[in-house]
Amino acid sequence: MKAEIIAVGTELLLGQITNTNAQYLSQQLASIGIDVYYQTVVGDNQSRLLDALDLAYNRADIVICTGGIGPTQDDITKDVLAHYADKTLMMHPPSLEKIEQYFIDRNTKMLKSNARQALIIKDSEPFMNDVGMAVGLALKYDQTSFIILPGPPREMKYMFEHYTKDWLLNQLTTEVPLFSKTLKFAGIGESSLEDRLKDLIDAQEDPTIAPYAKEGEVAIRLTTRAQDAVEGSAKLETIEQVIYERLGKYIFAETDISLEQALVKLMTEKKLTVATAESCTGGMLSDLLTSIPGSAEVFPGGIVTYSNAFKHKYLNVPAEIFEGENAPGAISAEAARLMAEGLLAQSDTDFAVSITGIAGPSTMENKPVGLVYVGIASKDRETQVEEVRYPGNREIIRLRSCKLALYKLWTCIKEKQ
Amino acid sequence: MKAEIIAVGTELLLGQITNTNAQYLSQQLASIGIDVYYQTVVGDNQSRLLDALDLAYNRADIVICTGGIGPTQDDITKDVLAHYADKTLMMHPPSLEKIEQYFIDRNTKMLKSNARQALIIKDSEPFMNDVGMAVGLALKYDQTSFIILPGPPREMKYMFEHYTKDWLLNQLTTEVPLFSKTLKFAGIGESSLEDRLKDLIDAQEDPTIAPYAKEGEVAIRLTTRAQDAVEGSAKLETIEQVIYERLGKYIFAETDISLEQALVKLMTEKKLTVATAESCTGGMLSDLLTSIPGSAEVFPGGIVTYSNAFKHKYLNVPAEIFEGENAPGAISAEAARLMAEGLLAQSDTDFAVSITGIAGPSTMENKPVGLVYVGIASKDRETQVEEVRYPGNREIIRLRSCKLALYKLWTCIKEKQ
Repeated sequence: MKAEIIAVGTELLLGQITNTNAQYLSQQLASIGIDVYYQTVVGDNQSRLLDALDLAYNRADIVICTGGIGPTQDDITKDVLAHYADKTLMMHPPSLEKIEQYFIDRNTKMLKSNARQALIIKDSEPFMNDVGMAVGLALKYDQTSFIILPGPPREMKYMFEHYTKDWLLNQLTTEVPLFSKTLKFAGIGESSLEDRLKDLIDAQEDPTIAPYAKEGEVAIRLTTRAQDAVEGSAKLETIEQVIYERLGKYIFAETDISLEQALVKLMTEKKLTVATAESCTGGMLSDLLTSIPGSAEVFPGGIVTYSNAFKHKYLNVPAEIFEGENAPGAISAEAARLMAEGLLAQSDTDFAVSITGIAGPSTMENKPVGLVYVGIASKDRETQVEEVRYPGNREIIRLRSCKLALYKLWTCIKEKQ
Repeated sequence: MKAEIIAVGTELLLGQITNTNAQYLSQQLASIGIDVYYQTVVGDNQSRLLDALDLAYNRADIVICTGGIGPTQDDITKDVLAHYADKTLMMHPPSLEKIEQYFIDRNTKMLKSNARQALIIKDSEPFMNDVGMAVGLALKYDQTSFIILPGPPREMKYMFEHYTKDWLLNQLTTEVPLFSKTLKFAGIGESSLEDRLKDLIDAQEDPTIAPYAKEGEVAIRLTTRAQDAVEGSAKLETIEQVIYERLGKYIFAETDISLEQALVKLMTEKKLTVATAESCTGGMLSDLLTSIPGSAEVFPGGIVTYSNAFKHKYLNVPAEIFEGENAPGAISAEAARLMAEGLLAQSDTDFAVSITGIAGPSTMENKPVGLVYVGIASKDRETQVEEVRYPGNREIIRLRSCKLALYKLWTCIKEKQ
């Protein structure tokens, strides 16, 4: 199965946005055994899009188009594919109803252009858009399957995960099925992980071993083809065991979930709670925790103490810590410890986690950019503080600091078991 | 001048990396008035790369290839272009010398494969690689110019900025230069913005008007061709005035910066400060503010009060608000007002901003997902509270709520002027 991904949008050709959709879809297709041969970007232009569809028709079995299905005049993807396949456009009533309901709920008048987003191509299979308005679709045309997905990454991903992936898997049923498993790691960098598995990665044949890093976490995807799930699992398990022996303590999940998801799940099961005290990460840690539905069970809240005055006022960190020539300063193990302990004393939670450091670009207290302290206080053990020094820019330093805090807390809870 | 960008590399088709090179080059080309008509990604495969070059030759005046010029067997871009243009490869002595020197300096033996990186195509113009090893080049073939740049973004950008851009500008001396300007909007959605400028967008010729949305904000890019900057500005200003008359109150910047950047800049200039009290956004608002370097000047900190207990404890919201049958509850205008006022009373800042709402997926207090209240308290005026109802999923609702809070504060400060 050869696939081509066509992203439609002049904003891409102007370099206003990055084509992350192509990357996401390439990863997803690779994971279900579909090879992507080309990625193309074309503007909101009828004749050039038509050319791109024709070219893709001639060189791919599956063509996935993203973008160009919104309400404006520029949104022409469905029109052009319908024209290419010599089909008409028709209304998809459930999608239209959903759009109408949206405007009724808000007591505002629906513009006629919004109804365009509920159009599908005759003989196609619609994909509902549960997190947006424009309906997607799959159209079989001769031997080629054309798929149209929304341009906004959130809508595109949601639709792919909930509808398109299954549709594609159904097309693939004649092939030997693919089995895969993802192991997620924290507390270890991508290069040292690869280094410690170098012999396995170099010698890999079946299963394949694909390490990748994203969003401050590292993952390994193991993939094999097998006649059934029993054979598939057995093949994966052999290699998995070796990985566990070498790096087991860094593995926080056996599915592709984030560290904050794993932590919220673990804490919910154990009925544990945590509060956060953040300086350099400025709320990113609590944002990560609360991005997980159900996090209210484990997280009552946190304090962002960006200034020293706030650290003193809300966390009872004594002002002497910050003042005077020999004071340790706000970026110190001492400050991290006092922040975590100060919060724990008042928060009525099982744990309090603190982060203080320098995300840059400027240095502070004559200390280097990237220096970060993470503290974990709990009622039944001594406060732990870890000092790290991260390379990279402000964004990366902040993200890694949060991931370290999450990992330390996860480890703390795991060790207690 | 029509351009096509071809990124070469199987790692792109596997989704292991994002094609940021295409975005960078598209931006750069747009800024010097070259229109990109297509971006293509092709793997390290001879026949498919040959097809891609031939296709580009037939539809573009300038073809920029990135990647596939390293030392390994997979790096075939120069070989394939040489073959396509029926030219031989030859050594570029200054590049070879540089590579050899690198190994002499490190006292290690140079592998023969490293010399491949110093090859250029006969009759091409070489671009030295000052920050890496592989030399780039420009080759004119009939009416089409082919350019080959390295794949690693740092090397590619350096080479483009220092050599390729000038080479391109020399080809363009006969063309009229391009001028453009970006207007950024908040507090208005993309479709209603487009709706209110529909006549301008439909009738656009020169300047062109390109609206686009990203990360909860909307932008319009105006572009025109003119003999010089004075003429360019004058042509842009005419259309800009009309846009200002209709939508001026939503414009927060005349460059492509984020709302939080604009707000931190404005508050720094005016020496104003703000503290945040967040419920459903869980720290995302303070995270957005502190993602901006220098935000410490305007933001001492915030309180994430995810639980009602925290709202009571840290913001002094009376417990009666939450309890009892007729109590307004935590998701109410009353709660938003009390959160902002409770924080202002203790934070020693000019403003306190609160957000409370339901990000979903579950409903709360029998109220619908997407219902959000934003409050702004300040010492010298009455507290404002706005109720909104957002569609979309948890992530979108949280992001939009934060952007609304930022916009409301921005408006508050602007109005005071």
